[in-house]
Amino acid sequence: MTNLTLALDAMGGDHGPHVTVPAALQALRLNPDLRMILVGDESKILPILRSADSELSRRVSLIHTTEVVRMDDKPVHALRKAKNSSMRLAIEQVRDGHAHACVSAGNTGALMASAKVLLKTLPGVDRPALVSCLPAVTGKPVYLLDLGANVSCDYETLFQFAVMGSVLCEAVEKKSRPKVALLNVGIEECKGNGDVQQAAQLLLHTPQLNYTGFIEGDEIYTGCVDVIVCDGFVGNITLKTSEGIARLLVHQLKQGLTQGWLIRLLARVISPRIQSVLKQMNPDHYNGASLIGLRGIVVKSHGNADQAAYLQAINLAVTEAQRRLPEMIKDRLESILLDING
Amino acid sequence: MTNLTLALDAMGGDHGPHVTVPAALQALRLNPDLRMILVGDESKILPILRSADSELSRRVSLIHTTEVVRMDDKPVHALRKAKNSSMRLAIEQVRDGHAHACVSAGNTGALMASAKVLLKTLPGVDRPALVSCLPAVTGKPVYLLDLGANVSCDYETLFQFAVMGSVLCEAVEKKSRPKVALLNVGIEECKGNGDVQQAAQLLLHTPQLNYTGFIEGDEIYTGCVDVIVCDGFVGNITLKTSEGIARLLVHQLKQGLTQGWLIRLLARVISPRIQSVLKQMNPDHYNGASLIGLRGIVVKSHGNADQAAYLQAINLAVTEAQRRLPEMIKDRLESILLDING
Repeated sequence: MTNLTLALDAMGGDHGPHVTVPAALQALRLNPDLRMILVGDESKILPILRSADSELSRRVSLIHTTEVVRMDDKPVHALRKAKNSSMRLAIEQVRDGHAHACVSAGNTGALMASAKVLLKTLPGVDRPALVSCLPAVTGKPVYLLDLGANVSCDYETLFQFAVMGSVLCEAVEKKSRPKVALLNVGIEECKGNGDVQQAAQLLLHTPQLNYTGFIEGDEIYTGCVDVIVCDGFVGNITLKTSEGIARLLVHQLKQGLTQGWLIRLLARVISPRIQSVLKQMNPDHYNGASLIGLRGIVVKSHGNADQAAYLQAINLAVTEAQRRLPEMIKDRLESILLDING
Repeated sequence: MTNLTLALDAMGGDHGPHVTVPAALQALRLNPDLRMILVGDESKILPILRSADSELSRRVSLIHTTEVVRMDDKPVHALRKAKNSSMRLAIEQVRDGHAHACVSAGNTGALMASAKVLLKTLPGVDRPALVSCLPAVTGKPVYLLDLGANVSCDYETLFQFAVMGSVLCEAVEKKSRPKVALLNVGIEECKGNGDVQQAAQLLLHTPQLNYTGFIEGDEIYTGCVDVIVCDGFVGNITLKTSEGIARLLVHQLKQGLTQGWLIRLLARVISPRIQSVLKQMNPDHYNGASLIGLRGIVVKSHGNADQAAYLQAINLAVTEAQRRLPEMIKDRLESILLDING
């Protein structure tokens, strides 16, 4: 890796610079060729930066702004009014070629809208998608998109998501011909709504992708496919339901293991092991959702990410930048669209 | 309870009479005033029935047929061709007033289509909904509908589902003014698609219901509301995703607890407690989904239900029959529609 630069919205997220700056320093320590542009309030960033050794801080530059996008700001506010927000300035670093990717833990709607306007979508892409990976039984991640950037999608959008998801999985996991499926209420051809059915038809006639058919909700976590495509309404609810049921199970398990002194005693001994399993399942540990389909790399971190989780989002941005993800998606999409249309 | 009669599609499900007949006998043992009509192949039912004591078998009548709806039969086949299927004859018992409710573990699509045609929907109901309850942290069940009977729903259908779900929860849980929510990708008014937003507006102007607003996927299992409404596409995927992630967690937990001799030893001691928690979470133990909005009671059991699970489906049918659920929904819907239109 040579000369890779990330722009960080240092103010985004619940903990702002207290998480973003230490995570940035940690990333710099791990990657000697990485540089960082921290965007945010210097009065809050500098005190944390000062603790870093000089080799690291030499690779950090700072763009000072006191304006921030709040978690409850509407996207339109972020676009029209907050022209100097840390989020917007971070995205502009990518647009203007000063950074290879940006990371923000800020307001998702604002990030999506700003990134779309400032970076523009790739040719052939109507709408960017929010994509993340989930843990599967096999230990391999499963990519799910869209996660809520687009509440309703026509079949062409679903098709584009399938192409983009496949290329993302290829690029990040170095997996050739990843298996792509459409999320549906049944696996038979007649199941689902019109858009899902038409998207399936289109995918069946796209030999460049390894499309395997429909998949039901209970197969998401088996790892039987690598990329799962759905509209943002379904994707968002699927992801959040998973978080909810995981939390319920943890709760029930804790309840079950506090009844009776022997169980309580043994549970205390066994607890670190259970905790480590639950940690693997914790959605926060799969931090970093990518906005793909844009002419630049934007990674969204959970708002409540801690330093370790935020570091994962940074690492994801680094990987996507190293693999030149937007160019890969663009080339792949162009070749597929050319084949289909010509 | 006096003179309550259930019709059972004795052939439906993966195990047919081997599960349905023993479960029916168990239900008869528990409810001295219950009667059963078993519909199916007498050569398969009678050998199992013969083991029952005569008091129980006096309360069983049998309708013999060798025709069955297979799991992969299309609904249209069940409707047009399988005129003497055990499923259809069981529903006809309800239509013709010979039974107060019917239960089937057969093909969902065929059951839905046959029930709709044979029993008809209630006045004011366009489409029946499939509803079931999920386990919440609070220990109280949460009703989710639709679970896949209707892959896309306009706002009026979502509204009708909210009314029906609320009345069902009132009737079965004896809960006054249950909290009703719409499943969405955010809780703010501007979130979601047009149908969800319009349904919300309609519900906000329906004081007869205790509508509490939008709910996100991660709140489903907290028990913060009693009834959650969504279209069948989202509901089906939500339910199945929950099953999938629960299975993944169990798998990970088992993996985590087999590494290291001490952990393995302790895990063996603690295992029954963990098993009992997982059993509570097992979707099979929440067996019995109701088809509501019809002029008769139809309960769908999981296809792979065992005797205990099938008994739950029977008990649900008994409860709904005792509370005269279709009449309750009809009255409530009429009064609400009258208020809205008048």
